[in-house]
Amino acid sequence: MSTDLSKKIRHEAFLDKIVSAEEAASWIEDGMTIGMSGFTLFGEPKVFPKALSERGKNEKFKVNIFTGASLGPDADQAMAEADIINLRLPYQANPVMRKKINSGEMKYIDQHLSHTAETLRQGNLGKVDYAVIEAAAITEDGLIIPTGSVGNSPIFVEKADHVIIELNTSTPDSYEGIHDIYVPKDQGDNREAIPVYDDLSKRIGTIGIKVDPAKVRGVILSDRPDIPSPLFEPNEETQAIADNLLDFLAKEVEEGRLGPNLAPLQSGVGSVANAVLSGMAKSDRFKNLVVASEVLQDGIFDLIDAGVVDFAIATAFSLSKKRVDNLASDLEKYKDKILFRPQEITNHPEVIRRLGVIAFNTALEVDIYGNVNSTHVSGTHVMNGIGGSADFARNARITIFVTQSTAKDGNISTIVPFVTHVDHTNHEVDVIVTEQGYADIRGLCPTDAAEKIIENCMHPKYKAQARKYFEDAKAKRGGNTPHLLDEAFSWHINLAEKGTMLLDEK
Amino acid sequence: MSTDLSKKIRHEAFLDKIVSAEEAASWIEDGMTIGMSGFTLFGEPKVFPKALSERGKNEKFKVNIFTGASLGPDADQAMAEADIINLRLPYQANPVMRKKINSGEMKYIDQHLSHTAETLRQGNLGKVDYAVIEAAAITEDGLIIPTGSVGNSPIFVEKADHVIIELNTSTPDSYEGIHDIYVPKDQGDNREAIPVYDDLSKRIGTIGIKVDPAKVRGVILSDRPDIPSPLFEPNEETQAIADNLLDFLAKEVEEGRLGPNLAPLQSGVGSVANAVLSGMAKSDRFKNLVVASEVLQDGIFDLIDAGVVDFAIATAFSLSKKRVDNLASDLEKYKDKILFRPQEITNHPEVIRRLGVIAFNTALEVDIYGNVNSTHVSGTHVMNGIGGSADFARNARITIFVTQSTAKDGNISTIVPFVTHVDHTNHEVDVIVTEQGYADIRGLCPTDAAEKIIENCMHPKYKAQARKYFEDAKAKRGGNTPHLLDEAFSWHINLAEKGTMLLDEK
Repeated sequence: MSTDLSKKIRHEAFLDKIVSAEEAASWIEDGMTIGMSGFTLFGEPKVFPKALSERGKNEKFKVNIFTGASLGPDADQAMAEADIINLRLPYQANPVMRKKINSGEMKYIDQHLSHTAETLRQGNLGKVDYAVIEAAAITEDGLIIPTGSVGNSPIFVEKADHVIIELNTSTPDSYEGIHDIYVPKDQGDNREAIPVYDDLSKRIGTIGIKVDPAKVRGVILSDRPDIPSPLFEPNEETQAIADNLLDFLAKEVEEGRLGPNLAPLQSGVGSVANAVLSGMAKSDRFKNLVVASEVLQDGIFDLIDAGVVDFAIATAFSLSKKRVDNLASDLEKYKDKILFRPQEITNHPEVIRRLGVIAFNTALEVDIYGNVNSTHVSGTHVMNGIGGSADFARNARITIFVTQSTAKDGNISTIVPFVTHVDHTNHEVDVIVTEQGYADIRGLCPTDAAEKIIENCMHPKYKAQARKYFEDAKAKRGGNTPHLLDEAFSWHINLAEKGTMLLDEK
Repeated sequence: MSTDLSKKIRHEAFLDKIVSAEEAASWIEDGMTIGMSGFTLFGEPKVFPKALSERGKNEKFKVNIFTGASLGPDADQAMAEADIINLRLPYQANPVMRKKINSGEMKYIDQHLSHTAETLRQGNLGKVDYAVIEAAAITEDGLIIPTGSVGNSPIFVEKADHVIIELNTSTPDSYEGIHDIYVPKDQGDNREAIPVYDDLSKRIGTIGIKVDPAKVRGVILSDRPDIPSPLFEPNEETQAIADNLLDFLAKEVEEGRLGPNLAPLQSGVGSVANAVLSGMAKSDRFKNLVVASEVLQDGIFDLIDAGVVDFAIATAFSLSKKRVDNLASDLEKYKDKILFRPQEITNHPEVIRRLGVIAFNTALEVDIYGNVNSTHVSGTHVMNGIGGSADFARNARITIFVTQSTAKDGNISTIVPFVTHVDHTNHEVDVIVTEQGYADIRGLCPTDAAEKIIENCMHPKYKAQARKYFEDAKAKRGGNTPHLLDEAFSWHINLAEKGTMLLDEK
């Protein structure tokens, strides 16, 4: 290990600081706030949170855990199981943690992913005691080279009183050079423009995170590999959604609103996003695309291989086992096609509006007027979180939400009279896509949008009851956005009582 | 009039184009889209829309009317009465028009005020046939000098096939030099950063709107004066809200999160905003403030006089009769303290995030978790529109919503279990202020936020029933955001049936 280690830790001041995970975990006090690296299971510390969770089994304490986004089994899950978290933000996706949150045992703030860094800078979330950052290496200059995500690590390192580095000796050396770390100044301090322009490949920052060595209290060694995500192979329904979305984009090109290289693309994580990317790789309709996204999934490599995508920006990987196993060689191969930036930069409203991104994200439910719920099942139980979807949706050139028209064997219609929780208002929703078709609601008033969403996107078996609600609401109440407040949630209530959103005919 | 006219129209090509309002109105064809200047009753064409409305009394046609924001009696109201509008966007505030919208006789898209220009640029709203722009003068270089607002006029002039200028000979000459017109390039065309930085007084554009004289089909003469808005004198309740808000800001300074010059301020239009500004003028707690807002009300002049505000940016005036009558001398006096920019620049997410604006806007209703309804009474009937509130709220350093805790003699609680329409999600709401107190919900999970909003902001007579809903929702349903879908709108339904949100005790 020592040969490796001299390559991985190339600055003497850090070599002296190697400690065990248990020792580092012992420094944490009840009530502290820890900022951890990690985003969609990539780049998170693994042995530190595990050690902290172990300590929690014998000792009563609680900490606040702020991250980039979702962490995996050794972190979010282990800490949730050990009941050591008071407050968690800005995003999670772990089933055990989700259960603790929804039972009220853990506090959770679902935050826009571009906002966390700003709120820390503004002092609006209190201070960060420790930053715990997974690293691929520490350079001669004392830069921390992150691994498969950047996330909020730069702001955590800047704002924390102390830094703990979890150096992962199993990570490919080729991580070095893939990151582009730019940290904005404080507001009111002559802050400059974020220097991201049309040429996305132009570097704006450094290859690693600057840290004052005096702030680094410990370096932990780890060899835990990156965590693969499930592989999302397209099925018939996700393929149909992807085809509809590609048809919409083709029409935009045909009608001259977009060129064949479209506009920078952002895609959410999941099966539909992956199916769309695969569809683009197979299609010859679009070329010389660039990706300005939050997360890179497997599909991005296919698109680069197919010569469809020229360059991609993101803050993290989310890769399947196959890609994780090939990561070292893939990083070499794709290194000049990819840059990883802090999540406040990839998701920055300034950057998204300037570039004119096309954003497609997944909806949990959509209402007939185009309001979108991305997070809360039946309005109460949070699934994962809003993530970066609203960062992109609000400022995109075209904002697209995708969903299958039904769920749970058709007992749930994802298109409902009134969403039980609003994450995206219809002010910022342009196109809804399901396997049934797409509704382009740009330039439509709410009632015209409703006609189109019901007609083009709903599953046929729910159309009649949607039309009845809509017509009754217009006739009995009226307004620019007709609703019947005593029936608005009747489909959800029916589901809770009878197991289906299909109402009895009367 | 001729002496005036040579001062007002200083470019020959335009002098040849003088036509009557009736003639210009006759050019408009059924189905056309007209982009009109005007914002909060300032800077709108008056004789053209009046003539178009007259024509509509004898002839059946409909047009789409896009503006900056709300127009007055000779425009929005006249056109609504004449039934000549198919689609209106992005904002209105006229009672006659509101009625037509809510009865379904007129289509209305309530749009973020920073979005209209971008959607036109992207081709997402179709083409603009005519731009009709009120002007204070036309310069030697052929620049159109706007009057009391800039709004969306620059993009309308750029994108329209034809331009009609309504030259208002009654406007003060001192309007010249107060405008700062900057128009971003198209997305994908190497768009640059919006060059607004901490020194707000630094000009970024031209003193007027560039126009190709060949596109100008007609110049109409008008002498209709600017339209005053009601004067919002503080009453006991608005004063209490203002005091609570000022206390909150003072606490931010005390705890070191803000300096005594705070951060650039944005305030919505209305009585509370004016009371806050008056309160600031009287207080010696804050100094050397700058305003980065959308609209300047009377209060801003008091603040400048008191030496509290050094500089103010906006896109429009909204002034009372007293200030309108003194406008010519006021413009001279305050000219070096004020700049008017296009609404896409004042409200630009890039600018708001960079500067770190403190935004306070009025809510129609707020729910216990901090979601805000700014627009729809009982979820169906639109009042005015979202305006720029969300442009500011999403990206502000601190986002504050103010409202009186009750309305209609106490029969309505403005704090409810579930808002009937969501304009601002709780992801972007930091502080709620009523006359009862303020709830700073930064860093609080939804249930902790609910405790604080109920305790600090609700009217005492609604607290018990709010606590009952909240406790029942936690006990019966749970989740990160506990709700009971069959009771969520019960207060509103009670109001509709019994005239009060106060529920009967059972």
